[in-house]
Amino acid sequence: MPSSKRAGKFAAEVIDPINAQGDRQGAVCRAGEVTTSPGYKEAFRLFCDTGWHAMPASSEYGGQGLPHLVSMAVSEMWKSASIAFGLCPMLTNGAVKAIAEHGSAELKAKYLPKMVAGTWTGTMNLTEPQAGSDLAAIRSKAVPAADGTYRITGTKIFITWGEHDMAENIIHLVLARLPDAPPGVKGISLFLVPKFLVNDDGSLGERNDLVCASIEHKLGIHASPTAVMSFGERGGAVGWLVGEPHKGLAYMFTMMNYARLNIGIEGLGVSERAYQHALAYARERVQGVPIGDASGQAKPIVAHPDVRRMLLDMKARTEAMRALSYWVAGHMDRAKHHPDAAQRARSQAYVDLLTPVVKGWCSESAVEITSTGIQIHGGVGFVEETGAAQYFRDARITPIYEGTTAIQANDLIGRKLAREKNAAGETGYTARALQAEMAAFAAELGADAELADLGQALATAVAALQAATAWMLQHYDSTPQAAAAGAVPYLELTGTVVGGWLMAQAARIARDHLAASSTDDFYKAKLATARYFALHRLPRAGGLAAAITMGSGAVLDMPESLL
Amino acid sequence: MPSSKRAGKFAAEVIDPINAQGDRQGAVCRAGEVTTSPGYKEAFRLFCDTGWHAMPASSEYGGQGLPHLVSMAVSEMWKSASIAFGLCPMLTNGAVKAIAEHGSAELKAKYLPKMVAGTWTGTMNLTEPQAGSDLAAIRSKAVPAADGTYRITGTKIFITWGEHDMAENIIHLVLARLPDAPPGVKGISLFLVPKFLVNDDGSLGERNDLVCASIEHKLGIHASPTAVMSFGERGGAVGWLVGEPHKGLAYMFTMMNYARLNIGIEGLGVSERAYQHALAYARERVQGVPIGDASGQAKPIVAHPDVRRMLLDMKARTEAMRALSYWVAGHMDRAKHHPDAAQRARSQAYVDLLTPVVKGWCSESAVEITSTGIQIHGGVGFVEETGAAQYFRDARITPIYEGTTAIQANDLIGRKLAREKNAAGETGYTARALQAEMAAFAAELGADAELADLGQALATAVAALQAATAWMLQHYDSTPQAAAAGAVPYLELTGTVVGGWLMAQAARIARDHLAASSTDDFYKAKLATARYFALHRLPRAGGLAAAITMGSGAVLDMPESLL
Repeated sequence: MPSSKRAGKFAAEVIDPINAQGDRQGAVCRAGEVTTSPGYKEAFRLFCDTGWHAMPASSEYGGQGLPHLVSMAVSEMWKSASIAFGLCPMLTNGAVKAIAEHGSAELKAKYLPKMVAGTWTGTMNLTEPQAGSDLAAIRSKAVPAADGTYRITGTKIFITWGEHDMAENIIHLVLARLPDAPPGVKGISLFLVPKFLVNDDGSLGERNDLVCASIEHKLGIHASPTAVMSFGERGGAVGWLVGEPHKGLAYMFTMMNYARLNIGIEGLGVSERAYQHALAYARERVQGVPIGDASGQAKPIVAHPDVRRMLLDMKARTEAMRALSYWVAGHMDRAKHHPDAAQRARSQAYVDLLTPVVKGWCSESAVEITSTGIQIHGGVGFVEETGAAQYFRDARITPIYEGTTAIQANDLIGRKLAREKNAAGETGYTARALQAEMAAFAAELGADAELADLGQALATAVAALQAATAWMLQHYDSTPQAAAAGAVPYLELTGTVVGGWLMAQAARIARDHLAASSTDDFYKAKLATARYFALHRLPRAGGLAAAITMGSGAVLDMPESLL
Repeated sequence: MPSSKRAGKFAAEVIDPINAQGDRQGAVCRAGEVTTSPGYKEAFRLFCDTGWHAMPASSEYGGQGLPHLVSMAVSEMWKSASIAFGLCPMLTNGAVKAIAEHGSAELKAKYLPKMVAGTWTGTMNLTEPQAGSDLAAIRSKAVPAADGTYRITGTKIFITWGEHDMAENIIHLVLARLPDAPPGVKGISLFLVPKFLVNDDGSLGERNDLVCASIEHKLGIHASPTAVMSFGERGGAVGWLVGEPHKGLAYMFTMMNYARLNIGIEGLGVSERAYQHALAYARERVQGVPIGDASGQAKPIVAHPDVRRMLLDMKARTEAMRALSYWVAGHMDRAKHHPDAAQRARSQAYVDLLTPVVKGWCSESAVEITSTGIQIHGGVGFVEETGAAQYFRDARITPIYEGTTAIQANDLIGRKLAREKNAAGETGYTARALQAEMAAFAAELGADAELADLGQALATAVAALQAATAWMLQHYDSTPQAAAAGAVPYLELTGTVVGGWLMAQAARIARDHLAASSTDDFYKAKLATARYFALHRLPRAGGLAAAITMGSGAVLDMPESLL
């Protein structure tokens, strides 16, 4: 069995069955100890024992060193089966990445093999009550001790899998300020703070001075404990500095970028699962004679045009999200391993540009797609036992955590667009080059008799994105408030158009295979799905571009006081 | 105090405080008895005792006989405060309307005064396990008894407030088939089936043969018991025929149309409340220095451009929904009371055309608007105690019950558009006349120096709606499946454009007042809000029209088997 099928089997047979139960009976915190939902501990142990946990990590620390494209496709399946479950290994692997890239040889040797294996798990501790989207406001402190370690004090909130009973130890990566730290984001350092101190032989020592004060009662992902972590109530938790002082935020971005892509994949995964769930119901539920059906017999609701539209909308948007995510994953691999330095740089620029789009667009779309999943069920969709509502509730966190959509969008229009310069000093170089590539492809497709309608729709959409990009580059410095007011629609526009471009490419490949007498249903479905995306979703681009170029001024015309 | 202020005070001080508690501790069913959430019984009693319950009903039965425009505006407040609470009086008043219009003098005299007062409440019993959207599949039976009554047997599901402890009696309106009934929707009759039989002197007699078998565990509106009702387990519940045999569905439409408008108002009400909630948080939560703010100080998040965009989006869409709903309510009053018969007919045609739009568009929008409400809160929005999540969960039922959005959309493109003919035999007369009126207004506004941008945006959007309407009229008979595949986008398009037209009218009125040296903030806010709607929301019309005219074919190109 190829590993993708094995992963699908594991997701379907081990993780999916505990998902609904984990929703009904979420993690519980009593006196600082978190008991995870029934079955989660056992599933996680099996997940580690069968090697899935180690899959994404570098072989240097016991991982499989597979391409990002492979591990991301596999991780989609864990998230489809249970977002709550998938978060724990995802965060651990993100912490592994940050330690591997920025930690000392000692830290790496001591922590990474056990973290890669899943014997120990990892967390990211950024948010504080007064410091959410604004990390400059972080107050947690780190004081140097005589032995070269640090004593950490402070309260961190929204710490995903911050405390639980699935692993022997939990390795917290914590942002805090040294006594001599400058104010703002340039005075934040990164510390490794284990739940249990680790002896030199690798065995576990004393409990560190940190405790889970409580966990949140949330709309969704109930099986994922979201902890309030209190560090240093008894004098200071022992921590080790990762890398150099005051560079913690940059290091944390290694983990954050990994996590952001992965949250995009969560949006993709839960959308796919909501689609499967709705499709199964639509094939089974018999209700009414479809319009234009001459038989006069009631049919499964999949035969009703509007149900078909909803299912196809879910499918097409999910596939466009998948195309975008995997395309970015492929460029992550090229950015690291391609023999040509120019290609490596180009690939890295694509990854940088589109990471906020994968995160923001896939997560926002997931809320709408899982909502459509409920709608297809009609009245029973609103009944919790049906299961469709859980996907909707779980999906709702994805546009919030790891940076809200506005944070992603500001990153996109700022660092990734208006402040990106090529050697010639031209701004927005990567975005404009990608748009030119998309426009050229649209023109090619427009000249293709069978796919001209897709080419035309894509050309119009790319032109809208180009107009919005020109507006954004023109206004970013002169009227930054207007640019910021248009940032989220710009992110949505970028996702829609790039997704549409990749779907149109898929359509041409599918058509070519079918023309070469393939009878594979996959190609037939892909062609029809891509056409729907082109003719149904891409025409929204014009409205989004107008909302940016005309609507942003209208946002600022409204005085705050009159809201 | 004017009655709108008194209503607001009652909603804020009596109903709103029990809303969150009703979510946490929903209605409970034990052995057929439903205990409502804490405080609901007392609030409902006060609601009845202070006369609010009787407000919408005709004065003939003890109601206040106020215009629809007034009672609808007031009912928005109940729904803002608690959708779950507002459902009970709404359904009772709907049942009152159906009995008043179609029941015998005896039934009216016996039941209406107590129902109008809220001493007894009412329900609508349509759905059965095999008969959801397809009412033709109803199987419940009614057998004539010697005394002129009927014996009702069958199981009804999703019966809102079907059983509870807030009223002395519950009057069920039940759809069932007589023994000689023809198949399909033309063989359904309407019966009045009280929980307790009523003696001739109005006192309560025996318990009728009907029982609440269970209530649903739902995503939202936990305080509203959604009952499975079992009729006739001990031989048959005693029921009285309402009106003539086999005409039950037409009678029930009296109640359904009332309920559909009211569900639209639920979408409006919960959107308004979610906006208020998010705005209060955005004014209070300090986080980050806004882009372009020279002070260097962290500010409340309302000052951040994207938060302002989200708030304004919630506000503008809510006001457009309100404008549409109240405009329809005004025409309901004109349809009944205007001295000119032609105006009465025109008004009734507007009400008929736009009832599915109020229901479908306001409810679908409410899901998105309450989702934005969560987003404005960031991480705490996902925490249940914050309250934003409840509005999102509660709102999710509104596009489902009283006919899903697809049902509304099919009604819109069918009976209300393609099958509506004027004396000259022209189809879609009312919709086209309304569109022509909107186009004329857009042209006027386009020539108004200060409002030309709104006029231009409206003109473009109306043209898109006209193109989609022409397509719909052309395809409804020839390719009904394609028309049905475009129905929901057509409903959304209609709501957006009509809402935008009414907002543009409001903008002109506001501008005129300000030009006449009014300094009222209400007018300033209305002008800015309407401009946002025109420049940010109306440009979506083109994409929706394209999704209908190009995209509907793409839906049908996808074979069911390949989904």
